[in-house]
Amino acid sequence: MDGPLIALLTDFGLDDHYVGVVKAVVAGIAPRARLLDLCHAVRPRDVRGGAYLLMAAVEYLPAGSIVLAVVDPGVGSTRRAIAVGTGELTFVGPDNGLLSWALWRLARVGRADVALAGAECCLGPDAAAVVLDRPELWLPRVSTTFHGRDLFGPVAAHLARGVPLRDLGTPTDRVVALPWPTPLPDGAGACVARVVHVDHFGNLVTSVEPGAAPLRRLEIAGRQITALSPHFVSDAPLIALVGSSGLLEIAVPGGSAAAELGVGVDAPVRVWLGAPSGGSHGPRVSSE
Amino acid sequence: MDGPLIALLTDFGLDDHYVGVVKAVVAGIAPRARLLDLCHAVRPRDVRGGAYLLMAAVEYLPAGSIVLAVVDPGVGSTRRAIAVGTGELTFVGPDNGLLSWALWRLARVGRADVALAGAECCLGPDAAAVVLDRPELWLPRVSTTFHGRDLFGPVAAHLARGVPLRDLGTPTDRVVALPWPTPLPDGAGACVARVVHVDHFGNLVTSVEPGAAPLRRLEIAGRQITALSPHFVSDAPLIALVGSSGLLEIAVPGGSAAAELGVGVDAPVRVWLGAPSGGSHGPRVSSE
Amino acid sequence: MDGPLIALLTDFGLDDHYVGVVKAVVAGIAPRARLLDLCHAVRPRDVRGGAYLLMAAVEYLPAGSIVLAVVDPGVGSTRRAIAVGTGELTFVGPDNGLLSWALWRLARVGRADVALAGAECCLGPDAAAVVLDRPELWLPRVSTTFHGRDLFGPVAAHLARGVPLRDLGTPTDRVVALPWPTPLPDGAGACVARVVHVDHFGNLVTSVEPGAAPLRRLEIAGRQITALSPHFVSDAPLIALVGSSGLLEIAVPGGSAAAELGVGVDAPVRVWLGAPSGGSHGPRVSSE
Repeated sequence: MDGPLIALLTDFGLDDHYVGVVKAVVAGIAPRARLLDLCHAVRPRDVRGGAYLLMAAVEYLPAGSIVLAVVDPGVGSTRRAIAVGTGELTFVGPDNGLLSWALWRLARVGRADVALAGAECCLGPDAAAVVLDRPELWLPRVSTTFHGRDLFGPVAAHLARGVPLRDLGTPTDRVVALPWPTPLPDGAGACVARVVHVDHFGNLVTSVEPGAAPLRRLEIAGRQITALSPHFVSDAPLIALVGSSGLLEIAVPGGSAAAELGVGVDAPVRVWLGAPSGGSHGPRVSSE
Repeated sequence: MDGPLIALLTDFGLDDHYVGVVKAVVAGIAPRARLLDLCHAVRPRDVRGGAYLLMAAVEYLPAGSIVLAVVDPGVGSTRRAIAVGTGELTFVGPDNGLLSWALWRLARVGRADVALAGAECCLGPDAAAVVLDRPELWLPRVSTTFHGRDLFGPVAAHLARGVPLRDLGTPTDRVVALPWPTPLPDGAGACVARVVHVDHFGNLVTSVEPGAAPLRRLEIAGRQITALSPHFVSDAPLIALVGSSGLLEIAVPGGSAAAELGVGVDAPVRVWLGAPSGGSHGPRVSSE
Repeated sequence: MDGPLIALLTDFGLDDHYVGVVKAVVAGIAPRARLLDLCHAVRPRDVRGGAYLLMAAVEYLPAGSIVLAVVDPGVGSTRRAIAVGTGELTFVGPDNGLLSWALWRLARVGRADVALAGAECCLGPDAAAVVLDRPELWLPRVSTTFHGRDLFGPVAAHLARGVPLRDLGTPTDRVVALPWPTPLPDGAGACVARVVHVDHFGNLVTSVEPGAAPLRRLEIAGRQITALSPHFVSDAPLIALVGSSGLLEIAVPGGSAAAELGVGVDAPVRVWLGAPSGGSHGPRVSSE
């Protein structure tokens, strides 16, 4: 039988031995665990960037997977180290909001008993979280600067070996959450959303979740888009479409929207939506 | 028993969750498959760049491997999705030429029954290809922008689980091919080849396949080389040698030829060859 | 049972098929070996950079692991190819000093019978080394430019399959060593150490091994630091701490010390230490 999957997401980059050493420690404790790199290119200390990537990936992880996520600017200080179980998946990482958008996404599709309430995730009876406070599950010597290697990695490995969540530490029912940049009315008929991620292709992922309301118009960096494209192949110089993460994306066919528009994460995106019951103005926005 | 190897080549980069999510989907369907990254740094939408890397790698894959290759600027439009089997290896990817140079290389060494004819690979009786048109083998919800995750990954995983090629779709006997930049006579006694790849070290891989004819002279960016070096260790400021991919390479010992000459992919390379029967002018070019 | 771990460290980068092809060759020979990437971002031909990363990682590899390390500017020339066994670990790579700091680190913690003597590692009776000179263990065709694929990878794979070290080649008792940039007295009461690595976060790893003597003062690029910080979280603009590799590091909390100070590898670091028996000046430097 194959061991469980441990999916890694960090801001460690690939320039050093850091990711390799975490894997070596995990492999030493849990030789049968299968290691899967989700991403290690989160910008240094960018907890929101990590939270977005985890949210975009989480629905595709096989049941039983362990998520080892470390973007941890507070390492060595007072921030808590936690593990969160949803029944299907178990998350291990710092309690700084990194896990919150993934939990929220799972909750939205009925796969986690978690509610996002302001700056906290509240766990229902079918979810569980613990504060990692059992040093006997860590490396014998724990540094103050590299808990991925010394604490989180070993804990994920023990989970992979079958140690139950409740044995990893002391129960807690609240987990730090990051606020989602929900589109807000600008007082002039539009909503202001934000760019939450710029991908490798220069596509701009926005905080707009396409739903029942038709998109009438969108404005970014002084440029207008009035229709949704079905895919990236287009003669238009700038398009909007429902991206693979289920969010509205802005793209330059054959090029980089980020480079061409000169915008990045947090850039404002103005959207005008039609009546939710539908209308004659523009195509319907739908995530299907 | 270990599952088959699935070798991945994409232009997804490592900045996002894209590669990780493809692997998560594959691992969910085929937990025993072993995943091997060939390269994910193909420039966005550079089908030729991906075709070169696949060609350079393909001879070294163990028999039974599955190649999952996705450089797919036409995703979501009318381009076909295909799988091609050579007996030894099975390829899965878009039908845009990405697979063609690897098939051609295998054919050259007698390991694939495929002929490159203009813009098509023609398959002989010992090779087989299908158009991927069985949605029951894909994810339940298929996006228009990420077929690596939703279609190609699942198909490769089903292959790894033992689903035969013929059950993946409808047979086809032609596959799109890219033209190889064969060195062409310039009318003045030389042939004009092209740089087909610039590697991590700044070495320039050319489209010249060293053969029986001796190299008399080579010119690139106004610089002359008159002899082949046996390896990279040299006091010469600029050298040519038979590279590890079996093609003529141009290098700066201890440095980067690309940076020093200021040239990149598609740059012209002028070569003067001696008589194939050998002669006294310069060393013999040989791939052995 | 799972096969042994093969940990890879190279300067091949991730832009090409090079790392993937080495893994394909290994997987073809030793399908059960588990492959672990330590790092492939060593700067091209930077043997010292590779030696540092290997030293920083080596203590965390499980017993029985094989280290496949290739930073090999002399490939194809007269440099020797070697394998070194410490009992716990086996190293495979070029004999150019790349392995020496890892062996030295293991020796320091009593896990390798090796002494660093000038430009050589001398092996004691509990360590062993061989020159790799048995072509029957390599690929049938060995290039002059890519021994990672043609020679070192196959040898590591045969080790993983159980071939004993002594069967890989001819015994040798000396291995090339790189000099460690030991802090040297500057004649004015301070010692001059060097930056040995700049990590992904811009932290500057120095050649200072914190020990019993308290750090009184440190100077780099004209900036002074007079105390050790316990972790990266700090209001100070520039800090020093004992890093995760056991060496003194210089960091900018929330930023990049390398970018802010404008310094890189080999930059001098001046340190003033107190009396080893302790004193009232500044905190004690300790690796625990």
